[in-house]
Amino acid sequence: MTDTRFQHRHLLGIQGLGPEEITTLLDIADGYVEQNRSVDKRKNLLRGRTVINLFFENSTRTRTSFELAGKRLGADVINMQAAGSSVQKGETLIDTAMTLNAMHLDVLVVRHPDSGAVKLLSEKVNCAVINGGDGSHEHPTQALLDALTIRRRKGRLSGLTVAICGDVLHSRVARSNIHLLNVMGAQVRLIGPRTLLPSGVERMGVEVFHDMRRGLEGVDVIMMLRIQNERMRGNFIPSIREYFHFFGLDQAKLALAKPDAVIMHPGPMNRGVEIDSDVADDVERSLIREQVEMGVAVRMACLDVLTRHLPNRDGAA
Amino acid sequence: MTDTRFQHRHLLGIQGLGPEEITTLLDIADGYVEQNRSVDKRKNLLRGRTVINLFFENSTRTRTSFELAGKRLGADVINMQAAGSSVQKGETLIDTAMTLNAMHLDVLVVRHPDSGAVKLLSEKVNCAVINGGDGSHEHPTQALLDALTIRRRKGRLSGLTVAICGDVLHSRVARSNIHLLNVMGAQVRLIGPRTLLPSGVERMGVEVFHDMRRGLEGVDVIMMLRIQNERMRGNFIPSIREYFHFFGLDQAKLALAKPDAVIMHPGPMNRGVEIDSDVADDVERSLIREQVEMGVAVRMACLDVLTRHLPNRDGAA
Amino acid sequence: MTDTRFQHRHLLGIQGLGPEEITTLLDIADGYVEQNRSVDKRKNLLRGRTVINLFFENSTRTRTSFELAGKRLGADVINMQAAGSSVQKGETLIDTAMTLNAMHLDVLVVRHPDSGAVKLLSEKVNCAVINGGDGSHEHPTQALLDALTIRRRKGRLSGLTVAICGDVLHSRVARSNIHLLNVMGAQVRLIGPRTLLPSGVERMGVEVFHDMRRGLEGVDVIMMLRIQNERMRGNFIPSIREYFHFFGLDQAKLALAKPDAVIMHPGPMNRGVEIDSDVADDVERSLIREQVEMGVAVRMACLDVLTRHLPNRDGAA
Repeated sequence: MTDTRFQHRHLLGIQGLGPEEITTLLDIADGYVEQNRSVDKRKNLLRGRTVINLFFENSTRTRTSFELAGKRLGADVINMQAAGSSVQKGETLIDTAMTLNAMHLDVLVVRHPDSGAVKLLSEKVNCAVINGGDGSHEHPTQALLDALTIRRRKGRLSGLTVAICGDVLHSRVARSNIHLLNVMGAQVRLIGPRTLLPSGVERMGVEVFHDMRRGLEGVDVIMMLRIQNERMRGNFIPSIREYFHFFGLDQAKLALAKPDAVIMHPGPMNRGVEIDSDVADDVERSLIREQVEMGVAVRMACLDVLTRHLPNRDGAA
Repeated sequence: MTDTRFQHRHLLGIQGLGPEEITTLLDIADGYVEQNRSVDKRKNLLRGRTVINLFFENSTRTRTSFELAGKRLGADVINMQAAGSSVQKGETLIDTAMTLNAMHLDVLVVRHPDSGAVKLLSEKVNCAVINGGDGSHEHPTQALLDALTIRRRKGRLSGLTVAICGDVLHSRVARSNIHLLNVMGAQVRLIGPRTLLPSGVERMGVEVFHDMRRGLEGVDVIMMLRIQNERMRGNFIPSIREYFHFFGLDQAKLALAKPDAVIMHPGPMNRGVEIDSDVADDVERSLIREQVEMGVAVRMACLDVLTRHLPNRDGAA
Repeated sequence: MTDTRFQHRHLLGIQGLGPEEITTLLDIADGYVEQNRSVDKRKNLLRGRTVINLFFENSTRTRTSFELAGKRLGADVINMQAAGSSVQKGETLIDTAMTLNAMHLDVLVVRHPDSGAVKLLSEKVNCAVINGGDGSHEHPTQALLDALTIRRRKGRLSGLTVAICGDVLHSRVARSNIHLLNVMGAQVRLIGPRTLLPSGVERMGVEVFHDMRRGLEGVDVIMMLRIQNERMRGNFIPSIREYFHFFGLDQAKLALAKPDAVIMHPGPMNRGVEIDSDVADDVERSLIREQVEMGVAVRMACLDVLTRHLPNRDGAA
């Protein structure tokens, strides 16, 4: 069990991971899917280890997923909701890291509103750090759970065409998914209004579409992104109704994708804004609930893999 | 152990439960009272099971009681404090339910400000749901803990006369207690000003009194309800002083009840508003602390009974 | 194991403890330092026991330290963040205590903004109470962790000269440390502006300095206190720049202490206000991280010692 192809100390992003490392994480997660569906969902793999969820942004959903993952592996899990001051946050963040580090953690899960904050913090601690989402940079466990969801349905990632639709510019989910899908040999299309697509993104090896109907033609997977209210209030998006007309996923637009195309959304959804309820609840094609289920399994896999260097770990089970 | 007379999948309310089912829950809870008084208060009955406390209203007391109950049965317990938006809450609530369901819970405890919200949510999930209080509808574990408290002191519920006093109109505690006491053969009297009693309540088989002194004559049990501040500010109640004069429980009014009448309050108390400190702290007759103690035991019984359908459960201990 | 020299039911303050009791706590804590540095950081000493962290003030750091301590001893730990109303808080506090007591706790950790509130509460409950900081009164676990940190570095407390610098007037940390250091035979110097030192404090057997440079001459240990923002806005402190000039610890002032003098701070630090970053991060002389590490060990020792009266405790491991 101690042998693994994942040799990093932290999981700060998908960028930099190779296909073998990603496959290792997905394979291990696959095993946890079964554990989570059984009656006794707790293992003692991480008994006596300490996992801290340090959230500088509110996210009940992601925090709960990590908390469940840690507890189901038998770890002691502690939640810390931190208020992230923007002034001198660098210093404060490092002091927080130092303080937690002195308490002898094994894994620190961090969500932070600033891109790069998690990496900065990871350089100051001895424990493993998992990026639970940092600014508009990366959200690696989301990309991994998306990949696991697709792989379980489609049997593979390689050779698929995946459309990522909406506010790509501000989305760490999109960024992590682009890296992962590129590495695993899928073709990525980005769909959205010009104001919500990063300039020069074509250099990342993706195709860009401003016309959603054209972008969805023949795709295997449609990943919708959440439109955040603050974008609405800015000048990025003219109105909800107009946005939905051009970039909301409904049955008419869905019909342009492959007949067996699947629908994904990282949640929480704005029904009627970026996605029609009809499509979101399509029992055949929507994988939105499976994504949540895979989220717990993927986070268990990450906790598992990142603690494999610990002596005696596998004797504890 | 797997045999039980309680056959419901959820505990959404007392309404619809029969006397055998209520007795089963109280009998099982009785056993947990002893466990909670011992040194090692933890069992492994629900080891590896997941209990989520999903609270759309703030209630440290009830949440703590459920959290303790779950942990003392060995379950993994996760707290989620949700902000309940009133607009489109139906959709949001269902998406929240779907999300949690995908994480493979065993029991979901829900408190929600809207009557019926817990039932709606229970229809969307595979796990057992316990109503931790929904709007002015039901609060079944409160009625069960009240019943257990009375039964332990009086030896029975049947044939007792129980007065419920105060803001019955808005009280889910009153509603659940009326159902339970009716089913178990107790006689219920409702006491309060006309503005705080539901119209037509006589059809529920209760007696109604607007004069507290007359209503308390010869009763065995006095259940005081908490007056909520928002009622004060409305037109329901003229002033605290006047309210206390007519409907606050003091020694003078208490003297009209049976000599061995007991006093109950679901807490937290407004001392000097609906109840005098003198009466609240009467060591002989106030059962207010016992109610809290019974609360943990009753919630353990509910978690126990609702998970008995799980395969292998009793082998896990 | 059941034999101990610590015979108190609660830990409400350092005042009243003798040198043998303090030494007992420090010796036990020393053992937990090693446990916390090992891979499996969890013992089953307090399995089935309930510890509640009742915090009427926000303190993520102290709460986390106690939560970790409880979980690493195998206890069920529950956090309660209470809103402390200042009106009628006496009654509310007692009702809260009664309610928690009825749930059969083993240890209640309390932080409260009012001096004396923890003692009041401790008189109403059957469980052990640990003062997690009350007003400007005492913060005994902070003084114990400071003592353990010093003792591990210096080999002793007796005969050392310890300077406590800053807002002594409002500091429960200072008060607990003065008691402890006095009892253990260290010489205490208080350094600060007249407005931030309590009048008549010389009677506590300490030396008082208003000139930091003179006060630091030849000391073994420098304990800096956190300056709280509300003091800044009052008339106690003229300006941050001026405060730092006179009472902030920098390398120049540090040079006046013994060459092997160590630097301490209870955190969180205001870098550039009461302490220069240069000094705070001095790897040789700053013990600030060790203090955090010792905090968990000391709290484990307190939980351990205060539950030793429980029957069968040591058989549970």
